[in-house]
Amino acid sequence: MIYFDNAATTKPCEAAVAAVCKGLEDFGNPSSLHGLGLAAEQHREHARHIIAQALGAADEEIFFTSCATESSNTAIMGAAHSVGRRKKKIVTTAVEHPSVENCCKALEDGGFTVVRVAPREDGAVYAEDIIGAVDDDTCLVTCMHVNNETGAVVPIEKAFRAIRKKYPQALLHCDCVQSFMKLPLTAKKLGADLISLSAHKIHGPKGIGALYIRKGVHIPPLMLGGGQEKGFRSGTESIPLIMGFGAACEELSKTVDERYRHADELRSCLTKRCKDNGIAVNSRPDASPYVVSIAVKSLRSEVLLHFLEQRGIYVSSGSACSKGKKSSVIAEFHVPDELRDSVLRISFSAENTAAEIDELIDSVLIAQSSLAKIR
Amino acid sequence: MIYFDNAATTKPCEAAVAAVCKGLEDFGNPSSLHGLGLAAEQHREHARHIIAQALGAADEEIFFTSCATESSNTAIMGAAHSVGRRKKKIVTTAVEHPSVENCCKALEDGGFTVVRVAPREDGAVYAEDIIGAVDDDTCLVTCMHVNNETGAVVPIEKAFRAIRKKYPQALLHCDCVQSFMKLPLTAKKLGADLISLSAHKIHGPKGIGALYIRKGVHIPPLMLGGGQEKGFRSGTESIPLIMGFGAACEELSKTVDERYRHADELRSCLTKRCKDNGIAVNSRPDASPYVVSIAVKSLRSEVLLHFLEQRGIYVSSGSACSKGKKSSVIAEFHVPDELRDSVLRISFSAENTAAEIDELIDSVLIAQSSLAKIR
Repeated sequence: MIYFDNAATTKPCEAAVAAVCKGLEDFGNPSSLHGLGLAAEQHREHARHIIAQALGAADEEIFFTSCATESSNTAIMGAAHSVGRRKKKIVTTAVEHPSVENCCKALEDGGFTVVRVAPREDGAVYAEDIIGAVDDDTCLVTCMHVNNETGAVVPIEKAFRAIRKKYPQALLHCDCVQSFMKLPLTAKKLGADLISLSAHKIHGPKGIGALYIRKGVHIPPLMLGGGQEKGFRSGTESIPLIMGFGAACEELSKTVDERYRHADELRSCLTKRCKDNGIAVNSRPDASPYVVSIAVKSLRSEVLLHFLEQRGIYVSSGSACSKGKKSSVIAEFHVPDELRDSVLRISFSAENTAAEIDELIDSVLIAQSSLAKIR
Repeated sequence: MIYFDNAATTKPCEAAVAAVCKGLEDFGNPSSLHGLGLAAEQHREHARHIIAQALGAADEEIFFTSCATESSNTAIMGAAHSVGRRKKKIVTTAVEHPSVENCCKALEDGGFTVVRVAPREDGAVYAEDIIGAVDDDTCLVTCMHVNNETGAVVPIEKAFRAIRKKYPQALLHCDCVQSFMKLPLTAKKLGADLISLSAHKIHGPKGIGALYIRKGVHIPPLMLGGGQEKGFRSGTESIPLIMGFGAACEELSKTVDERYRHADELRSCLTKRCKDNGIAVNSRPDASPYVVSIAVKSLRSEVLLHFLEQRGIYVSSGSACSKGKKSSVIAEFHVPDELRDSVLRISFSAENTAAEIDELIDSVLIAQSSLAKIR
């Protein structure tokens, strides 16, 4: 199997699997007053500490959620229900993940004004455009760090620094699902008030995420109940998954730079082979090296995806979430109209190799000639 | 270890552990179009089918959530945002789990009228009292099936049948966390529109729950995003936990009656030994046999809990969620004031034995004499 769909989900690493199993064994409810509860609580706090360290944050700034979608919903709806009671404008980009875009849309329907900053003709989102869209009436700026379909990096640091200075009332949220443990990244350097994280994109288990909330920032919870996570996220904590998240994070945090360089080499390799063979590369050179969007003219994404699958190569057409639906994000990135149905997303992990890229491109070329014949 | 805290959480059964591990191995994202995604999707649908069968429901009536707290939040907030736009009254009981009570409280703060039906002097909640509280302006009736602190059974079936007939506009929600896979139970017989379920109370993993939504009932989602769960619950599904939930459910659904009888014997045993030794039993004889509330006069719950823990016996003071805070629910059940600080909750699983109950009571008696001396 050659797995090039790491932006959709990653294979849990051995450490994560072992941690989940340990968490199933030490099955206490952390809210229980006895020793089994205490052991579970300690496991939870240990994982929180690892994740906080990896993000350069304090332990008490990390709140566990069930996924990044929940983190982003909590952040955006929370901002709308706090600062948003007085200020009714939200600034975001036109290329957000549905978990952000659909929250913005719902708030728009409820009376908020949403400004969606689009990439310019060159396919880049500019900090100036984000900054320029913010005003005194803005309650929230929510921008992803790395786009999940093209790897485009949004200049969050520059944008948030300027916005913080000029409009300190606005809450600053960043979806870091595709950058955490991939790009060098700290909460402080990013300058965000709220950051969404996911475990299953970094070789942790599915069903666990976190929301970073900068100390001093207060937003209401999305979920009410027993008051877990200091009252911010009720519901019995998934200790096994929290432990798996922590273990994956611990494992990966040692190798951020090393893995980045590896991904960068893979990307160079892929880009070169694409150019040599007339395959379009939709991602910009300054994108995250982990996600490369390509397009094989006149071969529909889904057809090619299934052809590759038969050869044991797993890629994605657009993002996993869109499940085959035509992506509006790709159009926003100014991918030419005639290529939009032919987009493939190749997304890397540390386990991928240059030889696998050769096999991918060789297979694409075979597809081109053999499928062209059928047509 | 003698574990009598099964109402707080249960030990994952072997089948559930194996299923979680399998889910970590088959790591595809069910939204991916390739075979790995399809395999994940099939695992998810298999689990859904098992849970649906166990509840006597159709597969498409089961929606996965991250926990019962999320299920109840979704149900209650959803009802408030649908029927509740025109009708502003909610009927509930005074003894709900915080995940229900705190949603009701939030809606009350937002302008809804909440009627909380309390147990009568005999400690029972009467169907007549629930029915009598409902009127034409009621959008939602939300009542738990089995109380988590005393095992009290609320006559949902009788109440919901009458309410449905007279006030068909009201949505009927039931928190079945402490009754699912314990009491014989089907969605149809219960007569609910919405049912909250949790995996970790039935020997499944923590971090996964489900919401049953009766066919034809429409409430808005709590979480927006990629449109998973037919648009009702966005966020990448936790396939490992969903599989663990399914496996636990499959295992337990074979033995509901057998385990009920076993719990009933344990309860008889415990009740007899309590009565013989002057220990108060707060639970009614018609309560669920899985949860027995007792009180050892003049011994504070927490002191006794830790004394027992040193002897390897795990019990709870009140519910796990309250984490040592004095329970208002116990007062609502008319437990005498002088006993309220001395309440212990003994909650069973199929693994408990009569010999363990003997050891529990023997230990309590030792505590009584030895701790009394210190005092």
